[in-house]
Amino acid sequence: MSSERYERGSRMLTAVDGPAGVAVVEGLAKSFPDFARYVLEFPFGDIYARKGLGLRERELATVAALCALGHASSQLRVHVHAALHVGCKPEEVVEVVMQMAVYAGFPAALNGLSVVREVFAESGIQLPLA
Amino acid sequence: MSSERYERGSRMLTAVDGPAGVAVVEGLAKSFPDFARYVLEFPFGDIYARKGLGLRERELATVAALCALGHASSQLRVHVHAALHVGCKPEEVVEVVMQMAVYAGFPAALNGLSVVREVFAESGIQLPLA
Amino acid sequence: MSSERYERGSRMLTAVDGPAGVAVVEGLAKSFPDFARYVLEFPFGDIYARKGLGLRERELATVAALCALGHASSQLRVHVHAALHVGCKPEEVVEVVMQMAVYAGFPAALNGLSVVREVFAESGIQLPLA
Amino acid sequence: MSSERYERGSRMLTAVDGPAGVAVVEGLAKSFPDFARYVLEFPFGDIYARKGLGLRERELATVAALCALGHASSQLRVHVHAALHVGCKPEEVVEVVMQMAVYAGFPAALNGLSVVREVFAESGIQLPLA
Amino acid sequence: MSSERYERGSRMLTAVDGPAGVAVVEGLAKSFPDFARYVLEFPFGDIYARKGLGLRERELATVAALCALGHASSQLRVHVHAALHVGCKPEEVVEVVMQMAVYAGFPAALNGLSVVREVFAESGIQLPLA
Amino acid sequence: MSSERYERGSRMLTAVDGPAGVAVVEGLAKSFPDFARYVLEFPFGDIYARKGLGLRERELATVAALCALGHASSQLRVHVHAALHVGCKPEEVVEVVMQMAVYAGFPAALNGLSVVREVFAESGIQLPLA
Repeated sequence: MSSERYERGSRMLTAVDGPAGVAVVEGLAKSFPDFARYVLEFPFGDIYARKGLGLRERELATVAALCALGHASSQLRVHVHAALHVGCKPEEVVEVVMQMAVYAGFPAALNGLSVVREVFAESGIQLPLA
Repeated sequence: MSSERYERGSRMLTAVDGPAGVAVVEGLAKSFPDFARYVLEFPFGDIYARKGLGLRERELATVAALCALGHASSQLRVHVHAALHVGCKPEEVVEVVMQMAVYAGFPAALNGLSVVREVFAESGIQLPLA
Repeated sequence: MSSERYERGSRMLTAVDGPAGVAVVEGLAKSFPDFARYVLEFPFGDIYARKGLGLRERELATVAALCALGHASSQLRVHVHAALHVGCKPEEVVEVVMQMAVYAGFPAALNGLSVVREVFAESGIQLPLA
Repeated sequence: MSSERYERGSRMLTAVDGPAGVAVVEGLAKSFPDFARYVLEFPFGDIYARKGLGLRERELATVAALCALGHASSQLRVHVHAALHVGCKPEEVVEVVMQMAVYAGFPAALNGLSVVREVFAESGIQLPLA
Repeated sequence: MSSERYERGSRMLTAVDGPAGVAVVEGLAKSFPDFARYVLEFPFGDIYARKGLGLRERELATVAALCALGHASSQLRVHVHAALHVGCKPEEVVEVVMQMAVYAGFPAALNGLSVVREVFAESGIQLPLA
Repeated sequence: MSSERYERGSRMLTAVDGPAGVAVVEGLAKSFPDFARYVLEFPFGDIYARKGLGLRERELATVAALCALGHASSQLRVHVHAALHVGCKPEEVVEVVMQMAVYAGFPAALNGLSVVREVFAESGIQLPLA
């Protein structure tokens, strides 16, 4: 019934996060298939597929929000990876996370930087940035 | 002692939000002068003044975070205004706030859109966007 | 394209909250028509329309979550009204909100009870409950 | 002095979560005996013992709140178990957690589903639900 | 049944916040008498009545927490008043709230300072502090 | 340029948390040197160095806030240690964390007590306190 949104969401997820994102949703689908479908349909099929904001900006906004929320380190990990995948520079990601110290406090920013460090290590990005 | 950071922060605040932002900090300074100084020095003099991320991206990240946090509607109002002031398109601001429904839930996004509507009305931006 | 979900969401919103809920979404649609459509499609067309949990239980869970989050008093107001509309007893709504003192602290529960008091007054429900 | 509330709380905790809940509180009591006593007296002796809301509804409301809060995964684990123990169907628990995507965002719901998956595995409940 | 805790809680509330606190709880009792009783019994009768931490330190900790949470401005107002009532210096209260910028972000601290300014105005405390 | 604040912050961090705190910031500096500098300059060089509130009160307020926020267990660990280091009695730290059950809910307090138990074990402080 919603196959068009689902297909568009699958394409957007691949565009945003590559095979890593698809693997996360496929893992979810083994236990919670309806929810995995919603993840593709609403966030990716509806929201990320919208015009009016570039994918780079979308990912920087998502990194900001996930870091500020504080309870979403798994999802922050996915989206730090995704931010790099859509072409954000490592420096831009670090800047957004550091900026969260202002709005959500130093603990949220410090926890965000821990996630950044792990994803950068997996991605072969050396810290400190030159 | 910290006059260089203070001066840089004042210039950044003016760049980011124009006279409106300066007025907010001057109001604060009447009751809490030290804290008003910190606002200029750390967020604006240290963070916003950094290279490595454009002001447009900084403001979109801030709008995302303030919307997601849920308890910062006054500051969201300032930064929706600031986002427009640094050149974000109205459409980009609306997209970021709508995207927060995914990460922080529909209530946070709905409350964010209420703030957007008020700032846009004050700024003569007609809704719905064409 | 998504007219089936939209129609189902409209029916669910009416079932859940009656004309009051429809009025809220119509007000939203004047400024943010796409987001108003998402509100009907995803929360109401996808989630509330699911089998497996009764509407009374859905509304009590929503009241619990909105009270606990603390930043969603407008939405809590809508869903206290909705809880009564789908057949929750006033006593059940009060019990859920009081229970939030345990999980989210007394301030969240106290703010939730303020919302309950306002909605009950509008609905002609006398406090204290007998 | 408060032995009546304490005894009532012990009985309620056993009713709500069986030996698992009692074991958690006894573990707490080894380090923080006063706080363990408060846990029995206020949440269980005062709140859960109240009439006016069924235990099934209380547990669904608690699962909703703990999932939405985002920082309470240990307690969510206890109450997913408790929800099953008081007779909630696995499907009802999954529905409440999925519904939190609407109110607290997809990350909170995804983290909640991870907890559900673990508790269901320990309880021999197969996913996906038929 | 719990009259001893209730009486102790009443005395503690009066010690902590004077007639203003009692008036808040009496207002609550008109609509939600059981919850008003819990407020006296658990926070005040159990927790505030404990030895091991002075009332001044308890109030500074409460001001810190309510400011950091962000959704509790009504309760923050009560406890800024209470902090002054139990002998905290105005300067100490301002310091705690400013310190929250570090842990919960500048918006939480700024909103906390707005509350401080209102309570100080009602209490005849002039800002800026000399 | 900011060497005075940096030096003052280093001295304050050592006063507050001893070599443990310095080690944390030095670890951070390896990956994010600018952010490590901000941590010394703003929280410690600006805020903790202020007169008007004792270090013991500052640490109790920080423990309260970090426990209430719920997403800052690493930082709570540092500041439970710091609270002991600046002379707070173990009993005072436990009292503040238990008090958070009132304002942020039992899960936040329970998670805070888990951190307290770990830090106390490392510090040779026996629980339950006599």
